[in-house]
Amino acid sequence: MTVDVTTLRADLLRRVEDKLCSHLAAERDLWAEVHEGAVVPIDALAELIDSGGKRIRPAFCLTGYLASGGDPDDPGIVAAGAALEMLHLSALVHDDVLDDSDTRRGLPTVHTKYRELHGERGLQGESRRYGEGVAILVGDLALVYSGELMSEAPRAALPEWNRLRSEVMIGQYLDVHAAAEFSVDPRGSRLIARIKSGRYTIHRPLVVGASAAGRGDLAPAFEEYGEAVGEAFQLRDDLLDAFGDSADTGKPTGLDFAQHKMTPLLGWAMQRDHHIHTLMTEPGHTPDEVRHRLLDTGVPEDVERHIANLVEHGRKAIADAPVDRVWRAELADMAERVAYRTA
Amino acid sequence: MTVDVTTLRADLLRRVEDKLCSHLAAERDLWAEVHEGAVVPIDALAELIDSGGKRIRPAFCLTGYLASGGDPDDPGIVAAGAALEMLHLSALVHDDVLDDSDTRRGLPTVHTKYRELHGERGLQGESRRYGEGVAILVGDLALVYSGELMSEAPRAALPEWNRLRSEVMIGQYLDVHAAAEFSVDPRGSRLIARIKSGRYTIHRPLVVGASAAGRGDLAPAFEEYGEAVGEAFQLRDDLLDAFGDSADTGKPTGLDFAQHKMTPLLGWAMQRDHHIHTLMTEPGHTPDEVRHRLLDTGVPEDVERHIANLVEHGRKAIADAPVDRVWRAELADMAERVAYRTA
Repeated sequence: MTVDVTTLRADLLRRVEDKLCSHLAAERDLWAEVHEGAVVPIDALAELIDSGGKRIRPAFCLTGYLASGGDPDDPGIVAAGAALEMLHLSALVHDDVLDDSDTRRGLPTVHTKYRELHGERGLQGESRRYGEGVAILVGDLALVYSGELMSEAPRAALPEWNRLRSEVMIGQYLDVHAAAEFSVDPRGSRLIARIKSGRYTIHRPLVVGASAAGRGDLAPAFEEYGEAVGEAFQLRDDLLDAFGDSADTGKPTGLDFAQHKMTPLLGWAMQRDHHIHTLMTEPGHTPDEVRHRLLDTGVPEDVERHIANLVEHGRKAIADAPVDRVWRAELADMAERVAYRTA
Repeated sequence: MTVDVTTLRADLLRRVEDKLCSHLAAERDLWAEVHEGAVVPIDALAELIDSGGKRIRPAFCLTGYLASGGDPDDPGIVAAGAALEMLHLSALVHDDVLDDSDTRRGLPTVHTKYRELHGERGLQGESRRYGEGVAILVGDLALVYSGELMSEAPRAALPEWNRLRSEVMIGQYLDVHAAAEFSVDPRGSRLIARIKSGRYTIHRPLVVGASAAGRGDLAPAFEEYGEAVGEAFQLRDDLLDAFGDSADTGKPTGLDFAQHKMTPLLGWAMQRDHHIHTLMTEPGHTPDEVRHRLLDTGVPEDVERHIANLVEHGRKAIADAPVDRVWRAELADMAERVAYRTA
């Protein structure tokens, strides 16, 4: 292979970006004629796309597709990549309501923005319900658009896409429920993290790409790679939430503490130090107290070692897969990048 | 045509029901193996299906299909009917959060049930956020399942299906926003009612059915019929909300008053009697006061006359359509039934 693989993928990622924007622009034109207010939920999605984001899911989908020998000129794979990102926007907007998070990608979250707008304008009803209501509908609209985009992708990708979508909803439910129960169960926490995050981010996007290229036979190798690297991705997410810099991540630090998220990180730490449970559930304690206590358990270092092992496991899983050498190398690099990212 | 058309459709509606149940049962089996809690959102949907409902959207979709000469043995149309009902479940669950409504089909709404459960079990976090969070995810799951079901339907139905779905989300947003603004604008109210309810319930399901049968040429006739009958449907909804019996409708009466819904009914009434605006927005007034004042304006009688005209308009729109005589008669009957329903 002489073409630089990352150039090839970067070009496709740009087309995904164009597809996202042109889809919303076409909808905006259509609705602007119907009612001037109708463009508000569409613009909310356009703003979110504009505000950045890592595009990890489209990147893995395109990588799975190209590594499987898929035709880079097929517009169907661009639509699939855009569908994955649009689904992610939906999940972010709804997730921010579930967590009552106030910033995302450095901007106010949708429900926060519309809650405040309601108050400022002195509108009827409760500001919170209005803000969260708008966010529910904006997220629903993104979910609908994601399906619309996916209907332009190769039909062979649909089973994996369907699995991915229901899995992320059920995984999110399990996560919300585990936070409410808040019982220490690191095995359960790992399972939930795998379902709602790892598979959704890496394993299934790769298989969506491979299936679209007609290479369903690569699913087992991509599954093993994706499950390992996906778990590393999620563990890094938990570490960034606890110890990261919100200037880098664009969202508040310590949100998992505030929302009693029973992440594997916190589950393992509480197994060693029961007092952390109390610090998180009883009023009057600061996130910094939790943070220091957490460091004292030694669990963050163990998690770093675990991440290193998962990356190694992912690299091995792909080492013997029947894909071109340059894509194996790229997948190994991607494992490092998602596991050691700072945002 | 010798087969009784309603028997034919009733048989297909039973198959839609089976499809809804078997889809959820298969998902339940799959998830029960993964995590015992994962079945909760699936069971919430199964309960809603079990608790009744009128199945108006599948009925219009099947009618559009059969009237267009579609093959009654094609499983694709059953999947399309099921997809429409599953989408409706999603809309109901999210709508109940937007309206903070506490009953649906005579049972507690999803967010109410899980809010109470959270309180009873003394779980962590805020009961309201937990209940509404569960409802957001249950509605999201239904939205995902609706897409999954539709992927089994004839591809020719997809453009209308896509239009229907984004339209209902944007229409809902306009409705929520109009309630917050609460300015008297009967023209705007009619437009919103048409977008979010009439088209979604009658016009587009009919065209989904016709397109699935390869008769896109029937779209204009079905549009004219559907827009008129859909408006009659929505106006009856508004009258039932204001004056109906919650024992029949399975949901609270007067919800539009409480949520400041700017329905056409209320918009017209406020044009004649400005004091109704005050009664609805200032505290200390009962729904009965609004109801009496509303009757005094004479608007409810005008709305009844308007409904009769719309039904007549719908019947005429279908009178010359190139569909079999028996289906024209059935569509005329259906217009009467949705316009004069009591629940």
